[in-house]
Amino acid sequence: MKVEIINTGTELLLGAVVNTHQSYIAQKLLPLGLTVQRQVTIGDDHLIIRVAFAEAIERADLVIATGGLGPTSDDITRDVVAELTERKLIFHPEIMDRIEARFRARKFSIPESIRVQAMVPEGALVLTNHNGTAPGLALEHHGKWIILLPGPPRELKPMFEETVLPLLREKLKLPVLDSRTFRTVGIGESMVEQIVGKQLLALPGCEVGYCARPSEVDLRIIVRAAKQNEARAIADRAEDIIRQNLGEWIFGKDDDRLEAVIVAALAHRKQTLAVAESCTGGHLANRITNVAGSSEVFVNGCVTYTNESKTRLLGVPTARIDQHGAVSEPVARAMAEGVRTRSNATYGIGITGIAGPTGGTSQKPVGLVYIALAAPTGTRCIEQRLNYDRETFKFVATQYALDLLRRNLSSAR
Amino acid sequence: MKVEIINTGTELLLGAVVNTHQSYIAQKLLPLGLTVQRQVTIGDDHLIIRVAFAEAIERADLVIATGGLGPTSDDITRDVVAELTERKLIFHPEIMDRIEARFRARKFSIPESIRVQAMVPEGALVLTNHNGTAPGLALEHHGKWIILLPGPPRELKPMFEETVLPLLREKLKLPVLDSRTFRTVGIGESMVEQIVGKQLLALPGCEVGYCARPSEVDLRIIVRAAKQNEARAIADRAEDIIRQNLGEWIFGKDDDRLEAVIVAALAHRKQTLAVAESCTGGHLANRITNVAGSSEVFVNGCVTYTNESKTRLLGVPTARIDQHGAVSEPVARAMAEGVRTRSNATYGIGITGIAGPTGGTSQKPVGLVYIALAAPTGTRCIEQRLNYDRETFKFVATQYALDLLRRNLSSAR
Repeated sequence: MKVEIINTGTELLLGAVVNTHQSYIAQKLLPLGLTVQRQVTIGDDHLIIRVAFAEAIERADLVIATGGLGPTSDDITRDVVAELTERKLIFHPEIMDRIEARFRARKFSIPESIRVQAMVPEGALVLTNHNGTAPGLALEHHGKWIILLPGPPRELKPMFEETVLPLLREKLKLPVLDSRTFRTVGIGESMVEQIVGKQLLALPGCEVGYCARPSEVDLRIIVRAAKQNEARAIADRAEDIIRQNLGEWIFGKDDDRLEAVIVAALAHRKQTLAVAESCTGGHLANRITNVAGSSEVFVNGCVTYTNESKTRLLGVPTARIDQHGAVSEPVARAMAEGVRTRSNATYGIGITGIAGPTGGTSQKPVGLVYIALAAPTGTRCIEQRLNYDRETFKFVATQYALDLLRRNLSSAR
Repeated sequence: MKVEIINTGTELLLGAVVNTHQSYIAQKLLPLGLTVQRQVTIGDDHLIIRVAFAEAIERADLVIATGGLGPTSDDITRDVVAELTERKLIFHPEIMDRIEARFRARKFSIPESIRVQAMVPEGALVLTNHNGTAPGLALEHHGKWIILLPGPPRELKPMFEETVLPLLREKLKLPVLDSRTFRTVGIGESMVEQIVGKQLLALPGCEVGYCARPSEVDLRIIVRAAKQNEARAIADRAEDIIRQNLGEWIFGKDDDRLEAVIVAALAHRKQTLAVAESCTGGHLANRITNVAGSSEVFVNGCVTYTNESKTRLLGVPTARIDQHGAVSEPVARAMAEGVRTRSNATYGIGITGIAGPTGGTSQKPVGLVYIALAAPTGTRCIEQRLNYDRETFKFVATQYALDLLRRNLSSAR
């Protein structure tokens, strides 16, 4: 089954907005066994949009388009698709009622132009928009499907997950499969492949994919079979192989984020965390507090850039900094222990290193970092050399810190 | 002049990587007066790549392609373009020398397959890659230009800025123009347009563009004229209008980032900053410490999620929290003043609010935030209601905080 994506919007072509729809939709289609063959971005021009849709419908079995469903004159996708599929546009009063209710709730006056959003190509399915006014639309055309979605991500994403994916499962003759993604931290892509690749590929109908980002590797299996229970049985065997061999590196499945997994684990145990950061400059605290509900487990963070603040806020002895330097294992340990004790937290993390691009020496080069975890069972410290740009350095250092804590939580289970 | 972008790479179609090339290249072309008409993403398939290039060369005057220049069998862009333009591939020993030197410096052995990266379509210009092995290539074909760039952003971006932009300026008959972008904070897009839009459009040959993100608006002018000095004179007049009317909201030009502007201003004055964050959870410290050299001006940050830590780390009186609540102007002020005094910094920032999605009340709803700046001249506090998702809330709150400081620094100038 061939899939194409059409993204319309002059703001995308001007570069004002990064196109995240492409990767979002592709990722969500993968577990259905669907891969995208082509994606195109075009502006809000009638002829160009018409040609792009005509070409895509000719080549593909499923065309997913974003944008161009708004109320202004440059929103023309609805009209173009109605023309191309030779359908009349029909006014749907129940869509208009929803739109009007939305405007009334916000006490906005209702522009006349908004009426166009209640126009639907004859026979199209209406996909309700819970986060905006423009509904999505789904049309079958000579056995092919065309899905039109609103451009704003906060409208598109819920619609895609709640409505489009179930619709595709129902309407398309999708291959029978079972797809699972395992998220790992602290192990490289080639090592993951070396450990489980052959065993997984030996399973009937099992396809394996890897997606590597700095310090994280996703391992995805897709099992195809004649029947669903067969696919599930083989996927279960694959999961056994993966968990037995890679268990210690796996922190979650599918959309799990490492910081969210840790906040949930701490909340479950009614335990707390405090962090002391030098070179990561608040990035760790920021990641943890991005998780809704983190206030249950996060006590406080200290971003101690100066030596004086390491002593004042964390109680790191001046003599220790003088003797070993601010970037050293003894100081990382003292930071973790200091923030844990002073905050009365179950766990304390301390990070000190050299993010660069300057500040390194031959003894202590840019990229050197010490990461310590102070736990009820004692303190552990690791040394890493992370040769990345400044922001990636901060991310990867916090990955190691979170992973230290994750491993401690797992072993204490 | 018509421009098209071709992005090749199966990882883009699988959604494993977000395509940032499209917006990056589009943004860099805008100041040259070039806008992208179409962008397409395709996989590493010979026929599909060939068709995409043939179509793009037919339609456009400038085709910029990314990816497919690596050493593996799925890197075929070089071959396809040589075929399409009927050129032989010629081995360039000086490219091979550079590649070998790169491998030797890292003590890696040199794979045989790498040799393909030294093959160049006859007559093509070689664009040196300072951050990887694959050089870029530029070909003139029947008066049109084809530019091939490596896929990794850290290779592509320096090459684009150092080599491709000068090449385009030299080789293409670009319109004569002067382009400037002014970056504002704390004012809405429609207000920017209302204040200067008409005056700017009244200038001969002046085109105006707006790009709005949460709490930031970029105002871009492009002035076209017969001669460069005419364009510059009109752009100077436009800049006068913009600075006179929007001066207080402008924090920088072109690629300036607010946090970098502030770090530079503080460093210039040899002044320092300490921050105390509750709801922004370290996001402010993280943004500031993303700036290389911030250690010159940033003393420390405290992420005080609990009431107890606000008192312990910042000296906020317990009675004040009990009387006014943790999310209140008096507490924000005490946080800013406490962190400033204890850190012995020139400036202290305090932020307290409710990021959501839960934790709000009818009196203090989700989105409410107090932001205080303690300066040598006294303390100022503002109240905002920021109705965004959790991460955008954190970003926008830190924008207001940085803007408070920026305004203080400007007025003290």
